[in-house]
Amino acid sequence: MPFDKQLPQGVSDLYSNDYEKKEYVIGQINQLTKLYGFKPIQTPTFEYYDLFMSMPNTLDTDQMIKLIDHDGKILVLRPDATIPIARMVASSADKKPFERLSYVTNIFRMQNGESDVFSRSFTQLGVECFKEKDAYVDVEMIVLAIESLQAIGVERFQIDLGQAKFFQSLLKTMNLTPADERLIQEKLEQKNESELEQVLGKYKIDKKSKNVLMRLTDLFGNPLSVVNEAKSLALNDDMREAIYELEWVVQQLEELNLADYISVDLGLVNNLNYYTGLMFQGYVHGFGRSIIQGGRYDRLTEEFGLPMDAIGFGVYIDQLIDVLEKQHHFLKHETIQVGVHSEKTIEAFQVARQLRQAGMVVNLFSYETELNVDLDQKLIQLRDEHTPFESTEDLIDKVGHMYGKN
Amino acid sequence: MPFDKQLPQGVSDLYSNDYEKKEYVIGQINQLTKLYGFKPIQTPTFEYYDLFMSMPNTLDTDQMIKLIDHDGKILVLRPDATIPIARMVASSADKKPFERLSYVTNIFRMQNGESDVFSRSFTQLGVECFKEKDAYVDVEMIVLAIESLQAIGVERFQIDLGQAKFFQSLLKTMNLTPADERLIQEKLEQKNESELEQVLGKYKIDKKSKNVLMRLTDLFGNPLSVVNEAKSLALNDDMREAIYELEWVVQQLEELNLADYISVDLGLVNNLNYYTGLMFQGYVHGFGRSIIQGGRYDRLTEEFGLPMDAIGFGVYIDQLIDVLEKQHHFLKHETIQVGVHSEKTIEAFQVARQLRQAGMVVNLFSYETELNVDLDQKLIQLRDEHTPFESTEDLIDKVGHMYGKN
Repeated sequence: MPFDKQLPQGVSDLYSNDYEKKEYVIGQINQLTKLYGFKPIQTPTFEYYDLFMSMPNTLDTDQMIKLIDHDGKILVLRPDATIPIARMVASSADKKPFERLSYVTNIFRMQNGESDVFSRSFTQLGVECFKEKDAYVDVEMIVLAIESLQAIGVERFQIDLGQAKFFQSLLKTMNLTPADERLIQEKLEQKNESELEQVLGKYKIDKKSKNVLMRLTDLFGNPLSVVNEAKSLALNDDMREAIYELEWVVQQLEELNLADYISVDLGLVNNLNYYTGLMFQGYVHGFGRSIIQGGRYDRLTEEFGLPMDAIGFGVYIDQLIDVLEKQHHFLKHETIQVGVHSEKTIEAFQVARQLRQAGMVVNLFSYETELNVDLDQKLIQLRDEHTPFESTEDLIDKVGHMYGKN
Repeated sequence: MPFDKQLPQGVSDLYSNDYEKKEYVIGQINQLTKLYGFKPIQTPTFEYYDLFMSMPNTLDTDQMIKLIDHDGKILVLRPDATIPIARMVASSADKKPFERLSYVTNIFRMQNGESDVFSRSFTQLGVECFKEKDAYVDVEMIVLAIESLQAIGVERFQIDLGQAKFFQSLLKTMNLTPADERLIQEKLEQKNESELEQVLGKYKIDKKSKNVLMRLTDLFGNPLSVVNEAKSLALNDDMREAIYELEWVVQQLEELNLADYISVDLGLVNNLNYYTGLMFQGYVHGFGRSIIQGGRYDRLTEEFGLPMDAIGFGVYIDQLIDVLEKQHHFLKHETIQVGVHSEKTIEAFQVARQLRQAGMVVNLFSYETELNVDLDQKLIQLRDEHTPFESTEDLIDKVGHMYGKN
């Protein structure tokens, strides 16, 4: 019985049309990241499960794709890009310089509940800068994110800026358990005001702190007005410092004429076990899921024994392609393929070589099997028509004309 | 306790130096395959184990990396590139045209016995042409293989040509069981004359057939002389047809002045459950393992319900990089990175943007943290020295000079 040709759930073949879009998007952004000094690296597909256990509450372990190694250890297929890179950096501190790293990689997750939304593997491109905390780099990361989206022609996008330290410092005033903190974070992330209020009601929290926390659910929008309101809400020096840091970044972006692309959202609190300062997410109008996610994570490599400040962001390539398709960015431009034949085999190969050297895409095939034509003439078969030619130069000239090369 | 930062066996991090080599090799070959009309596609990392069960004796199932899906089905991580592509083509015959496909992909294998030689995942680049059998395409595939190695500057390589049908037709004269045929194939593959003779002694085989089979162990070397000897050894029409097909290919390659790159080996009999005609392997002098492997496989998609002739080859990228390193092809050329600072933040960003637009790699950082210099002057810090500049143009000129751009 022949195999039924099915594919497992949550995965799919990528046809050349779609692959070329992916290649284009990745190529454009990579060209930019290179100019920003980022150097490409790659971590392996397999990591020890224990690597992610050392970072509790950052990734959902149920979603990891696991296998048992021959020595009994549990392996996982790369469920995240940044943690393995932090491991790599921490474990090779001797192999300097390790400042600016970029990657394009597959991330693997078993997300059965939402299998029609997410696939089990998706492609992420990203940059990470491991370097002493530097406000310049914070601004530069946002600029790079904006320029990346501009480079591939994304329209109507916006980068939401948040500040992990503002919320974290607020939480500290409340003396809650980590579990309670996570619950609050979750409700705030969902901007679910009524449930958040209900949850907060259960704890003995200072009324001032509670009010500020409730304000976070709608503390988003115009950067400077949000920042100004946040300043008046700050309850301690850490919160004030957090908001001044954010204000400086916003000011630089405004001076760089990038104000139109940014917004501030102090309710941006996802992945807080990771982020320690500036956070940001890229959205496109009319498209629900974020296409960029990043922020400062100054304590991640410390988990692996080497304290090192860092900031980075990841671009969700598959979602970005969806956006570009919805915005009609991929015009169908079919490469003209040229089939060449002559009675003399060698001549056909030589003609093909010359055409290719001139940058043209050439397929060779036995002419007789395709079309019954007069072989007294040298012929070049262009997909839907055929053109006689006098000489190789004549041919290149004719084909070049079709390609718009001369 | 901090995580010990180890990696699982058989995998490794790829640092930017090595990643850039890989990018270069893949980029060069892909540029060529595009000109030959190959379109990039990608099959998923996960396939059903059953897919490979439908092709017995092609891949070692013990080496496949398996996991159990939530519905109880067995998945494997892509253990081979061509079989999934054949599945893809067969299952989407409606989505024409599907002639020339290329891929760059990870192949996953659990090879514990040889873990210091092979890794659990390696990168393969390849092309597949699904099209009615066409001798032109056979020649073109060899030409593309040769040009690919030339494009990246590989020295002293050779393509060994074989013919699966010659050996297969010879086997047919012997009426052996598939298991016996495999045993003979194995001994021949190892060119182990004495064991082959011992094995053959066990079967009741026509003496003529046995003699021809024994000759195959050393029927390799100069193309035309091997072909001529093989003609005299052919025992039936199928064997003769096989050798005439090979002769035609050899003749074309000689006429194309590629004779120096080729050799014929009629003892090339690996992967015979796959290949049906021309086979070839690329080797580099002084380097044991093959760097290219390919051939014609006219019955593979038939396993998936769609009979379609095909030919293709794969390039082992990691091994190719090893070869290039041994042949000293990767000269160390470090990109000069420029750190920019000015007292006015915005000016620094603008200067950086202009430098990048001029194609230069620029890192931004807070100057004070790096170097204590006179901030009255605008300064550009080049890695180990610093140069004052009068204007942005002056700066671009100075930096461009260092890059050798003007």
